[in-house]
Amino acid sequence: MKFARFTLSNEEKIRYGIISKGRIEEINGDIFSDWQFTGKTFSDLEVQFIAPLEPNQIIGIGLNYVETIEERPEIIPDIPVFFFKPISSVIGSGTPIVIPSTLTEVKFESELAVVIGKKAKNVSEDEILDYVFGYTVSNDVTAPQYFHSEGHWMVGKSFDTFTPLGPVIETEMDPDSVRVRSFLNGVKKQDSSTGLMIINIRQMLSYLTRVMTLSPGDVVLTGSPVGAEFLKEDDIIECVIDEIGTLRNSVITSVEKARTI
Amino acid sequence: MKFARFTLSNEEKIRYGIISKGRIEEINGDIFSDWQFTGKTFSDLEVQFIAPLEPNQIIGIGLNYVETIEERPEIIPDIPVFFFKPISSVIGSGTPIVIPSTLTEVKFESELAVVIGKKAKNVSEDEILDYVFGYTVSNDVTAPQYFHSEGHWMVGKSFDTFTPLGPVIETEMDPDSVRVRSFLNGVKKQDSSTGLMIINIRQMLSYLTRVMTLSPGDVVLTGSPVGAEFLKEDDIIECVIDEIGTLRNSVITSVEKARTI
Repeated sequence: MKFARFTLSNEEKIRYGIISKGRIEEINGDIFSDWQFTGKTFSDLEVQFIAPLEPNQIIGIGLNYVETIEERPEIIPDIPVFFFKPISSVIGSGTPIVIPSTLTEVKFESELAVVIGKKAKNVSEDEILDYVFGYTVSNDVTAPQYFHSEGHWMVGKSFDTFTPLGPVIETEMDPDSVRVRSFLNGVKKQDSSTGLMIINIRQMLSYLTRVMTLSPGDVVLTGSPVGAEFLKEDDIIECVIDEIGTLRNSVITSVEKARTI
Repeated sequence: MKFARFTLSNEEKIRYGIISKGRIEEINGDIFSDWQFTGKTFSDLEVQFIAPLEPNQIIGIGLNYVETIEERPEIIPDIPVFFFKPISSVIGSGTPIVIPSTLTEVKFESELAVVIGKKAKNVSEDEILDYVFGYTVSNDVTAPQYFHSEGHWMVGKSFDTFTPLGPVIETEMDPDSVRVRSFLNGVKKQDSSTGLMIINIRQMLSYLTRVMTLSPGDVVLTGSPVGAEFLKEDDIIECVIDEIGTLRNSVITSVEKARTI
């Protein structure tokens, strides 16, 4: 099923729904535990989709794709390059990515994102997908000029609008065999199977549960295929996983300063 | 005022209160916006204090204290060593820190923690303290053996129970002139004025708001004075800021594996 979050054009109330046969069937309740159909349905034209959830927290993984299956290392790293992104950086499909004018190089990174559905601690690779609610598309927007020289990525990953998510959460999908693509102004830039991940989804989620308790609403960005490039004002960046949909964002710049120190 | 969060010994309900003249006066509502006294009061002996809030997100800063004021650099770093910690790592005073048995070196780090009270974006250093709700004590427990060789601290900072916070949030305090101390099994290990920070609290919070929107419930751990050491099973670690109180945790080990890959 495809879960969406949306507003109607004339009001601010945030609604949830399931997309079925081109209509949006509204639901009430908590998508992770107990929800019911309200009986109301809407068409695409009546609604504004927003990010399909407010994440509880966001975890990313870096350096996780090879270009060809032959390059996949036999030994997986002891310590994956995990990082956090702030929940304040989330926007939905259709909302502009805002680049502060002091940033000269900002990359897009199209990724498959996992949405956790149940509390998970010390869960094996065999069982971990039972704790997944579904999957969405993410764009891990990144300003490498704000990576600390000693390897801390926090500032460069944390600007507002730097984590587009959407358009929906797909709950029925095999995450190991989908293609993650991106199109910059209509030109294909990334196109890899999730089979080209170095640390696969079961491995990374199980690893995380050996460290920390994952909770409903935690989102894990599973890494970006080769081919990511830089964004500039007026670009349109589309991140696409056919089974989920297209996450489409324009790019604008702001005159806000990135720093004051 | 000192805000506390607690349960009564015979029930699970989480309650909020204000500590006044040795009693806890219960309040209802949202501590960041609108709350009222319920009229009920409790004594210390009737309650179990828990972490004084569930943070919205947690930001830390590394390498932020000098030993003497003479060592304070004239030029502040362009990119501070900021990092995130997961909200799943929070415990309160009195709850044990659990060290997975695969970890051989785990450090304590006593720190002043800032609790944000209002949405803050692009706020100047002069005005940023108006957006602070209050201050608590934190222990930024850290396993350096899980720091990635290229500088990513995420795994080493993220184990469950690795962010003790408490005992209370003090809303009336000058954060620039308090002492941050720690005692390991009663022996003093850290004792520095917050005046020995390299990037002071106004500077770090203002910087963050140039990057991201801070929100009520965001917690910023402001760095650890020199003197932090390692913890082992059965230790008692106390992090102390006199104006706030003592954050006291025992240390136990678990047989859970830290990793499966």
